[in-house]
Parts: sequence; C-alpha cells; structure tokens
Amino acid sequence: MHRGRYYTLSASCPDQTGIIARIAGFIAEHRGWILESNYHAESAERRYFMRIEIRADSLPFDLAEFRKRFAPLAGELQMDWRITDSAIKKRVVLLVSKQEHCLYDLLARWQSKELDIEIPCVISNHETLRGFVEWHGIAFHHIPVMADNKLAANAEVRRQFEEVNADTMVLARYMQILSPELCNEYPRRILNIHHSFLPSFVGAKPYHQAYQRGVKLIGAPCHYVTADLDQGPIIEQDVIRIDHSDSPEDMVRYGKDIEKTVLARGLRYHLEDRVMVHGNKTVVFR
Amino acid sequence: MHRGRYYTLSASCPDQTGIIARIAGFIAEHRGWILESNYHAESAERRYFMRIEIRADSLPFDLAEFRKRFAPLAGELQMDWRITDSAIKKRVVLLVSKQEHCLYDLLARWQSKELDIEIPCVISNHETLRGFVEWHGIAFHHIPVMADNKLAANAEVRRQFEEVNADTMVLARYMQILSPELCNEYPRRILNIHHSFLPSFVGAKPYHQAYQRGVKLIGAPCHYVTADLDQGPIIEQDVIRIDHSDSPEDMVRYGKDIEKTVLARGLRYHLEDRVMVHGNKTVVFR
Amino acid sequence: MHRGRYYTLSASCPDQTGIIARIAGFIAEHRGWILESNYHAESAERRYFMRIEIRADSLPFDLAEFRKRFAPLAGELQMDWRITDSAIKKRVVLLVSKQEHCLYDLLARWQSKELDIEIPCVISNHETLRGFVEWHGIAFHHIPVMADNKLAANAEVRRQFEEVNADTMVLARYMQILSPELCNEYPRRILNIHHSFLPSFVGAKPYHQAYQRGVKLIGAPCHYVTADLDQGPIIEQDVIRIDHSDSPEDMVRYGKDIEKTVLARGLRYHLEDRVMVHGNKTVVFR
Amino acid sequence: MHRGRYYTLSASCPDQTGIIARIAGFIAEHRGWILESNYHAESAERRYFMRIEIRADSLPFDLAEFRKRFAPLAGELQMDWRITDSAIKKRVVLLVSKQEHCLYDLLARWQSKELDIEIPCVISNHETLRGFVEWHGIAFHHIPVMADNKLAANAEVRRQFEEVNADTMVLARYMQILSPELCNEYPRRILNIHHSFLPSFVGAKPYHQAYQRGVKLIGAPCHYVTADLDQGPIIEQDVIRIDHSDSPEDMVRYGKDIEKTVLARGLRYHLEDRVMVHGNKTVVFR
Repeated sequence: MHRGRYYTLSASCPDQTGIIARIAGFIAEHRGWILESNYHAESAERRYFMRIEIRADSLPFDLAEFRKRFAPLAGELQMDWRITDSAIKKRVVLLVSKQEHCLYDLLARWQSKELDIEIPCVISNHETLRGFVEWHGIAFHHIPVMADNKLAANAEVRRQFEEVNADTMVLARYMQILSPELCNEYPRRILNIHHSFLPSFVGAKPYHQAYQRGVKLIGAPCHYVTADLDQGPIIEQDVIRIDHSDSPEDMVRYGKDIEKTVLARGLRYHLEDRVMVHGNKTVVFR
Repeated sequence: MHRGRYYTLSASCPDQTGIIARIAGFIAEHRGWILESNYHAESAERRYFMRIEIRADSLPFDLAEFRKRFAPLAGELQMDWRITDSAIKKRVVLLVSKQEHCLYDLLARWQSKELDIEIPCVISNHETLRGFVEWHGIAFHHIPVMADNKLAANAEVRRQFEEVNADTMVLARYMQILSPELCNEYPRRILNIHHSFLPSFVGAKPYHQAYQRGVKLIGAPCHYVTADLDQGPIIEQDVIRIDHSDSPEDMVRYGKDIEKTVLARGLRYHLEDRVMVHGNKTVVFR
Repeated sequence: MHRGRYYTLSASCPDQTGIIARIAGFIAEHRGWILESNYHAESAERRYFMRIEIRADSLPFDLAEFRKRFAPLAGELQMDWRITDSAIKKRVVLLVSKQEHCLYDLLARWQSKELDIEIPCVISNHETLRGFVEWHGIAFHHIPVMADNKLAANAEVRRQFEEVNADTMVLARYMQILSPELCNEYPRRILNIHHSFLPSFVGAKPYHQAYQRGVKLIGAPCHYVTADLDQGPIIEQDVIRIDHSDSPEDMVRYGKDIEKTVLARGLRYHLEDRVMVHGNKTVVFR
Repeated sequence: MHRGRYYTLSASCPDQTGIIARIAGFIAEHRGWILESNYHAESAERRYFMRIEIRADSLPFDLAEFRKRFAPLAGELQMDWRITDSAIKKRVVLLVSKQEHCLYDLLARWQSKELDIEIPCVISNHETLRGFVEWHGIAFHHIPVMADNKLAANAEVRRQFEEVNADTMVLARYMQILSPELCNEYPRRILNIHHSFLPSFVGAKPYHQAYQRGVKLIGAPCHYVTADLDQGPIIEQDVIRIDHSDSPEDMVRYGKDIEKTVLARGLRYHLEDRVMVHGNKTVVFR
C-alpha cells in the first residue's frame, strides 16, 4: 500500500553477475528510494527478472529523463524493460457477453477505487448488460458477432480499443473467440478467465466434463490470450471443493465465484506490472 | 439442483430410535418422492436434526394439508419443525452502509437468479448506495443513525422490515449495531458478515489487530446476529493467506473478497433451510 | 467418533419412493439405534446410495442374523449391499517402492490407532524399507519386478495378498504398474495415490509436466485402481499453491505433502465404507 | 533448489536509500553470483530486511574472509546480520512427549534428505518413543518432568542441547512448558507447533474450545517460543475445514495433519534462514 506516487520498473535480461548492483546502483546514485523490489533468476533459461518500485518524489527528474538516463545501462544489459507511473491510470476495456458475475465484481472494485483504473468502455456481443454499464457512466458498445461477420466484428473490437487508447483488454466471460490476428496484435495485453481447471477439460462445457470425470475439485485460471486457444500463459488460478451431491449446474455456480475472484487477482497483478512472461509461463511478483 | 417445485422439511427433536423410520414412513405412505435428505444426531445433547426435500408433485395434497397431517407425528416426537415451498420466494431485506462489495455481489447473484429471492428494499444509514440500488428497481430507505436517535432508528428498521413482510435481514457490511431488542425479536433471521476471523480479534479494526499480531491468515465468518455482539452462531467462515508484505490496507482489501463470498454462501444455506441452530452452534446440511 | 461397537450398512439400488422408509423401518422394527446415516440420489442414473451406522448393542441379534433377515428386503429393492462390523479390523496390505513419505505417514497413523487396522504385511519391489517396516513388527516381502518377470511378480503379489486374507491393497507410492488381471480381480479394493492433478498431466514425470505448463497449483488424487491406468474413480484430491520460484524438484517435495495427506484421507473413507462407486465416479459420504 | 554450495546472508537494518546498491555492489565487486534475493521494507518501523543467496564457488574467498570484509559495510549500515554456509548442516534437537505424528513426519523428511540436517538427539519426558528414535540411529534422552523437578528438568534439557552443540530446538508436540529462563536463553531458536488457531483458543484443550464455539475451521500455527506462553512470533499457520458432524476427537485428528505439515514448513523456513523477527512479528521470505 503506497499512498504517494511511485514508478515501477519491470525488466528481464540475460542472467550474469552484478545485475542488481548495477540497477540498484543507478537508482541509488540519483537518491531513488526503493519501496519494494523483487528479483528472480530463471535458472534453466539463465534469464533474470526484476520489478522495482521507486518513490517518485525521491528522484531529481521526471520519467522521461529517467528513461533517457537509464537507456544506456539497459542496453548494456540487453534488457527488455519498461517503467510506469502510478499517477497515470491504466486504461482497461472490458468485453462481456450475457453473464454478469465478473462485470459486477470488477465494477464494484472500480467504484471503490480498489481498482484505480479508467474504464473507457465496455464492449459486448449482446445488449443485455448495457443499462448496468451505462448507469456507471461508462460507454457501452454493442458489437454483434455472427457466423458471417467475425472478421468485421474483430476489426470493430480493435477499432474501439484503439480509439480509446487503452492498455489492456479483459475478457470478463466474453463468450466469443478473438481472431488470431487480434490476439497477436496485443501480446500480454489481453486477459481471459477460463472456466475450467486448465490444462484439464479444454474445450466446451468444462464443468460438465469435470462432472463426468468425477473430480473433487474444480478451478479456473486467468491467463493471457494467445492465438493458441486456452493455451496462453497462466497468471493465476484457484480451485473450489465439490462433491458427489453437486450437479453440473451447481459446479457452474461454484465456478463463477472462482472465476470472478481469480480474474480480479490476475488483473491486479497485471495492472501493477507484477507479471512477466517468458515462453508460455509467467513470473508473478506478488 | 432441482428444476421442479419441492418442499423442504427441516426439523429437530429429542433423539430416540425410529425417528427416520417414522418420518420417512409418513412421507412414503403418501408416495412422497424424497430428493435429498440429511440427518444428524448431536450426541452430547441427544438431539436429532434433519432436512428432507420432497418433490411437490409427488404428494397428493398441498402444503396446508401436509402440515395438518404431519402435526400429530411431529407432536409425538416433540419436534421443532417447519416446511417451506420452493415456489414461494423468500423475502430478504439488505442493510448496508457505504461499502459496496457485498451489495454488488448479492445483487449480481439476484440478477442472475442464482439467488432466487425477492428483495423488497435495501436500508442504509447513508445515501451513498441509493442510485445503484434504485437502478435495480429496488426501494431504498435512508435511515440515518446518530448518537441521539438510535432507538428511533432501530424502530424504523423494524417498521420497514415488517411493512414489506420480509423473512430475513442481511447486514451486508452495515456498520451499525442493532439494538438487543431488535436482535431478540428476529432470532435466526438476521445474518451478519463479521470482518475478522472470530473468535480472534473481536471489536474494532480487526484487520489492524491481525496485522499487529502478525498472523499469516485472515478470515471472516457469517453468523446469526444475537444480542451478544459478534458472539452469534457461526454459519460459515473462510480464510485467505497473507504475508509480511501486506499492510493493514491490503488486508482490508483481501478481507473484502472473503467477506462477500462467505456472506453469499451463508445466506444461501440459510435460504435453503440448511442451517439449524442449537445453543450457540449450527448444523449446516450442505 | 463412536466409542462403542457399530455396524455399517452401505448400499445402492434403483431409485424409487419409499426406500428410506423401508430400510429405516426395518432397523426401527428391531429397535436398531442409528448413529449416522447418509443418503444420495444420483438423479441422472436414478440410482440411490446410502450408508447407515447402527449401534451393535441396540440390535437383538448378531450380524449373521441381520444379514439373513435383511436379505429379502434387499432383494425386493434390487440392492447391492454389504454390512460390516466395527469390531472386526480391516486387513490392509501396503505396497511401496523406495520413497518413504506415505509409508511413514500411514504407519504413524496405525501406531497411534488413528487407523485402527491390521497390516499383515508390506510388499515392495525394493529392499530399501525393510528395516523400518520390520521394526514395527510387520512382515516385509521383497518381490522384485524386472522386465522379464512381471507376470510372476504380479502373481506373487496376489499370492501374498490372498495368503494373509486381506481386504484392501494400498499402493503407497509403489512405482510399478499392476497387471490388468490383478486390477480386475480386486475391483474397488486397490487404492493408489497418483502424483499429478488428474486428469491433467497423465503419464510420466507429472510435476515436470506441470512445471513446463506453468501452472500455479499442483495436486494429487487418491483413486481406485482399474485396468485403465490412472483413470480409476477418484476418491479424494487436493492441491497446493506453487509459484515461479519453485523448481520441479520443489514441486516434487510439495507434492509429497499432498500425496500422503490425500492417500490417508481416501483410505479412511474407504475403510469406513464411505465410498461407493458408480461407473467411473464415487459417492463419498464424509 | 540449488545443487551447489551457497552462502545465505540474512540481515536487517534501519531503512535508508542505497542499501541494496551497497550490498549488491559489495557482492558484485567480488564477482559473487546471486542465486536468489529478497528485500522487504517494513515501512511503519522504517526497517529494512533482506536475504541473499550467493554461490560459494563464485567468491574468491571463504566465509571467514567474507565476514571480515563485509563487517565494515555492515557496521556503517547498523546491520543485524548473519551469513551461513549450505555445506554446514544445521543441528536440530527434537523434543517430544507421547504423540508420534510430528516425530514420524520429521524423521521421514530427514531420512529422505528433504530436511538435510543433523539430529544429534531427541529429548522426551516419556519413554514411549525411544525405540522408534533409536532405530533411526539417533540418541534418545528421557528427562522426566514432575511437579517438583521442573527447574532441574529444564536445566537438563539445556545441558543436553548445549552438549551436542545444536542450533535449533523443535517442540514437536512436547507437552511441557519450557521455563522462561530457557526461552530467553535461545531467542528465535526454539520452534513450537501450537494446537489451536492462535490467537483464538489460548490455553488447554483448544480443539474442545473450538468445538464449543462452533467454528467451521480449525488451525495450528508454528511459532518461536518466548517466555510469554503461546504469544511468540508466528512463522506459519494453516487451517482445515470441519463441520457439525465432527466431534472434538475428530478435530484432534484433523488437527494433527495441520500440525505436522505446518511445523515442517515453519522449520524449513527457519533452517533456510528465511525467517526474520521484529517485535512479535516475522518476515518470512518464501
């Protein structure tokens, strides 16, 4: 919990000795106050990951200047890096269909400023949730998806997303598959909540599959969307216990509680730049 | 999950041999189809608890007739009993203050018919959530509570509750203490979600107390309200893992996720007549 | 927790009205005192499951007489049934390889009488754990398994199991696959603990598979062994949270804690006749 | 998981800018390879905590030389610090009474080298577990504790602990209270597993207290022993779900599973120098 403004540097680079010393040295040299920092060496791939929060008012210059001065060091370390400012709210577009549980959950967190973001619009392939969204003062775009307009619909989603200059797209139980082109255009920027305990029960009606197999736990993962359906890097997942007395309908109901909680957690990690991806896996600095 | 109409018989009585035989015998005699049944003997107190769901269309008479015919047997067994009809929706009044997380959660479940209830009104000591409630087509009553009007405010809560002929009152993060008189008037009909892991951290600011003690798990129970503050019978509780990096503010945030989930679960058990109370404890037939 | 002797009737039959009334009626007619009872209707298949504990000293006759008198009713209801006596200890044979975590766990429970069973022998394909087993006064049989003696080895396992007249076989991290013949000979009597969160990661090195997929939870199920490898009915399962800092070796270590706990729980349910199988699923009356 | 030898530096100091830069700079200057590092600022108290693992073979000198060279920097930063060598096994003395569940669990982990420690002896106030301990080749000391010899018994525990030159004492369900003197002599070196969900149910028979209160979850914490009974800093805790059908005896049984798992986890964190104490709270770098 930080009340003041801070910058978040998140980065990865090839592993070698002295990385922390050089990064922390650069920050200390400018009297930067580190609030929180996390480091992880992925030994199999010899890659190094880090996330550092710096109090904004401890640095003698602004973010543009930080970027300029830090670039040479980042270059030497062959770093893949970014730095964000807690004072600039992330812009998140939500995609929904007819089910409301994730939408209510996210808007409650947004209303209470637990999620301190801008939601420039909500996009849906149905009209069902328009009233609820608009009551919150958020624009609602109905983009129907039919068998014969999928390309156009995907293009329209893309256009709306670009128009509001958003950072992140959240599929909050959006029951349409995004085109591979759209997925590829925004790597690590589209989050989905999947309604089964991946990698079990891939495909349709996962809770019914789980019922057939007689499992005693069901779950849901939040993952980044990739062109490879349901195979994207998992950010967060959780489970709930069921038993023989639970019908597939009960499991759907329990599943919703997991879905909304896991999506909210995964989104928070993403928005706070706590998630880094390598290959098909994530490093999540909680 | 039952799609058809059913009756729920819930009862307790002194333990003796032959209880199930007599109850099930009565139902079978009238060709009643038992969908689900649960029995529990509380051995220390020699008391017997049961809950039986019967398909409505399997019985040759209505609920009034059931009650009349069952009464003699219930009398012989010295039973404390009730039977309810799934076709008659329970009427639930919500009490809230300024925090929205439980309200959003309950209204999402009500919208999707996961909670198949009537909500005749929401009562609050603040105006904050009026718009959200009224958008859902639910009446909103603002009953301010000040140091000098507590009795009158409690009376007004009671009056509104009676006027809409409600069954159950839910304190969905209502930050006022109900008067002992009000609590005593509706035993086992008022549910509260407490924001600490009872019986730890009774009193104000429980998450701050938990932070001071350095616990690694925080939780929240849903309980029936009694005149003895925070001491009522616990219906359901759950916990979430925290660590040293979490501030009291983080814990409040995590706590909200537990609070809303546990309240919704406890309320469901209550509405489905799955909760029986003896002394300060509950039997919950999940 | 029952201190006195009791009988456990476990049964399933086609669903119809009046089952409980007739069973409970039979018991009440003989003044049988029901300690605990559970019923479940599997609606899709219209099959009814039940488990009833009766105080032994409340009945005016012994188990042989109970069986004789109950048989006609069971026949009418087309029941698949059994009744067991808490005074007769179940006889359990453990199969192990080199890993000790499940064996230590089970023997600790046996020593403390938490598991109130007879363990006539432990069978292993290695000598590693002989000393530990024999110190407990339990016979240890080394039955090596090589590529060219699998049939003979399976036959020897079967012979030892028969010789000690055992009820149940427990694969407590036994790293050999039982022959389909052996599996088919003892349906619902052989328990295994699988080291992955079925149905994910079937096959070899499941924790390494889980590591590759980047999951955030790993688990283990206890299931009945069938000729169809790793596909038997799941009795119990649980999970543990992991993160990016955990190597496959760490996951193996965490997994062991789940494995031993889940195996012990599943075995307890089995020994107390709480598990009923239909198709590839279980009803577990906890 | 590290296969090679490494040093672990754990430290805390007053918070200020540049701490990481200076520490990491010192390590980098000597070409030290950091395997894993964790940092935490406890903002309320402005204290900084860190734990750094360095590959032993990456440094050009041994631990004695490291200590000498690092001391000036540590002095400047007013650091409370230590550095340990993974090649030197920690020496742990276990104290037990009659219950075996924690002892079996710890010795299984020790046998499999999951816990890579020396156990120079086990101390008990009963003879019950002698055979089991001695079978493992570990010395067993029976130190009876009676009402009139408590001081002498505590002195004897201390003497045995000193004689084997141990680092850590583990109360593995040792049912005697250590004297305040003994507790004070080994701060942060004595671990206990408490059999209730602290801070609820302090005192005797906590599971019976939990049963009386009707809670739906029970738990157990592992904590450092202080002179203030059951009030020491909590290292780890966990819970298990119970319901109305569980007797106090069932709860004791479930509790044992939590106790042994939580104790093993807490001990591992302690042995890997992952636990730092400030006031009555812990920082645990998992």
